[in-house]
Amino acid sequence: MPRPFTADDYEERMRRAAEAGAAAGLAGLVITPGPDLVYLTGYRPVAITERITALVLVPGREPALLMPKLERPDVERSAAAGRLRLSDWIDGDDPYAALAPLLPDPAGRYGIADTAWSLHLLGLQEALPDSRYSALTQALPMMRAVKDTAELERLAAAGQAADDTYLEILKVPFAGRLETEVAADLAAGLTRRGHSQVDFTVVGSGPNGANPHHEAGDRRIEDGDTVVLDFGGLMDGYGSDTTRTVHVGPDVPAQVREVHDVVRLAQQTAFEAVRPGVACQEIDRAARKVITDAGYGEYFIHRTGHGIGTTTHEPPYMVEGETRELVPGMCFSIEPGIYLPGRFGVRIEDIVTVTETGGRRLNNSPHELGTVG
Amino acid sequence: MPRPFTADDYEERMRRAAEAGAAAGLAGLVITPGPDLVYLTGYRPVAITERITALVLVPGREPALLMPKLERPDVERSAAAGRLRLSDWIDGDDPYAALAPLLPDPAGRYGIADTAWSLHLLGLQEALPDSRYSALTQALPMMRAVKDTAELERLAAAGQAADDTYLEILKVPFAGRLETEVAADLAAGLTRRGHSQVDFTVVGSGPNGANPHHEAGDRRIEDGDTVVLDFGGLMDGYGSDTTRTVHVGPDVPAQVREVHDVVRLAQQTAFEAVRPGVACQEIDRAARKVITDAGYGEYFIHRTGHGIGTTTHEPPYMVEGETRELVPGMCFSIEPGIYLPGRFGVRIEDIVTVTETGGRRLNNSPHELGTVG
Repeated sequence: MPRPFTADDYEERMRRAAEAGAAAGLAGLVITPGPDLVYLTGYRPVAITERITALVLVPGREPALLMPKLERPDVERSAAAGRLRLSDWIDGDDPYAALAPLLPDPAGRYGIADTAWSLHLLGLQEALPDSRYSALTQALPMMRAVKDTAELERLAAAGQAADDTYLEILKVPFAGRLETEVAADLAAGLTRRGHSQVDFTVVGSGPNGANPHHEAGDRRIEDGDTVVLDFGGLMDGYGSDTTRTVHVGPDVPAQVREVHDVVRLAQQTAFEAVRPGVACQEIDRAARKVITDAGYGEYFIHRTGHGIGTTTHEPPYMVEGETRELVPGMCFSIEPGIYLPGRFGVRIEDIVTVTETGGRRLNNSPHELGTVG
Repeated sequence: MPRPFTADDYEERMRRAAEAGAAAGLAGLVITPGPDLVYLTGYRPVAITERITALVLVPGREPALLMPKLERPDVERSAAAGRLRLSDWIDGDDPYAALAPLLPDPAGRYGIADTAWSLHLLGLQEALPDSRYSALTQALPMMRAVKDTAELERLAAAGQAADDTYLEILKVPFAGRLETEVAADLAAGLTRRGHSQVDFTVVGSGPNGANPHHEAGDRRIEDGDTVVLDFGGLMDGYGSDTTRTVHVGPDVPAQVREVHDVVRLAQQTAFEAVRPGVACQEIDRAARKVITDAGYGEYFIHRTGHGIGTTTHEPPYMVEGETRELVPGMCFSIEPGIYLPGRFGVRIEDIVTVTETGGRRLNNSPHELGTVG
């Protein structure tokens, strides 16, 4: 197990985030519970509720955390607590009146966590009518995007656990079982290998594979099905996310083979386009060109990838229009797919990190169309 | 199992919500995934992500739902789909530009779901700079508060499952086991009785019981401990939430007995204050007065209760300052507590519904201080 992050790690992350905010013209950052707060402080409340908790980061000031009084003991036990100026509010108080004085400029622009509830943003906008806000992923999309060595270690370990889970699932029977049963095997495999949380276990068999958002249902898998397996979660606080496509039985129809070859080439081509300085949209374009040239462009109906870290879905996004450039340490998925409505789907996905010289895969299980029984 | 809600049920809920919005001066409602969307349409996306899905309700217009194209098949399978005007957006589009035309008045005030991500509210505020927003629980706090018969049936069944779980837990050994082990028993009990989701299993033993927000930890429960048990989740889409306090071993210290008697009287007194037309804050005051008169006022550090329905925490809140009045069909917790720092805590909680003549408890397990081994 990697070493736990320390108060020093969190203090450094908070300092860097505050400075990046200032460089982006922000008067400060307002971070409610969720992956940003976990990243910056290690603190994860038991539940995210209507009672506001908020971290306020301003360059040169001690980070301030406002919380409901009854959650104070939980905060005080967290790793970064000693580096935070704590204040609390109780039921009946106006928590936004308590939060407002922590924001140094009543007419400033602040970055706010994407997932902050509208209830809280509206409360803040009312308490400070001249303040303005930008979503954190738009104002500071790179705040969590570049991973340090300790984070990469966690992501690689999570990826390895997902790869091993895939190799294991090739040995279980598919034909005659429900999608949900195979999904349960995938979840058990991730959990047994150290995942604390399973976020998704897609088992898209036959026509269900043509719905890229299908999870797993009551369909009984049949001999001759093509099956999309997309699974991941969190291990030591960092995400895994991988997709492989398998075929039930040895007789693979020619079109399944052809579509799989196209997707595999698209995934490899996009991977080879990874290097520092390349715009994110170029990764999407590289995959999409292969699929379009093969005549399947209209069946690739999602972006090519998303970042991963303390969540399994975060910036940077590999999508047309994203002109930001790749930087060493970024980690994201490359997951092109082709979905033939009513028939089958194929997707191949690896997590990739950017190095000085190109991409490095954090998933390394075989890309070949797997054969299952 | 209660009958499933139908498209007619959802259409009626959407119509009522839109009309209530208009009566509150709103040009419409904007509902992103979460408990409000489940209540209004039955649709619960697989995951809540940065890709916006939003229902727009405007009186006299067909309800409109915007979703990411890849989630369209899931929406189309949901019960209310036939009553919705569906539109979608794909990665690379500006989803807020797609959402804006669904709002009839570019300078109107809209109610927005409390839990809508700030990312989405800011996107909407930018797309329609003259539009204004109010959090739904503030603009329409009663939208989900008054339950119909089919909802009450579900809440009562969830409450019964929680009561039975409590009676069962009295038979398991506490002394020598970890809090987390007893919590696992509580979760298993709820699940075995039909809960699809367990939201919390508080086991606060000894000094941990004095932290009302403590969940369950690595503390080994000892003979002589007082233990707070607070647990609940969702069954058939509706919540349970109950708290009882037990003592390990037969020798109950005099102060534990005294504190428990005070809390029990406070809970009963608050319950007896329930009837239509009474302000929510009166329920809080009734409980608080008993505890304050007994000299423990400073140790009752949270509000007396919260609503429950498609979530386990929602309006109406039984808290000082809440002057809205009780209406038949409302359901909420009454859960006074006393927390003596470093020593022990006591809380007793029932879900209660308002009838024409007074309160009716949906939890009916004994209030006596339970004795466990």
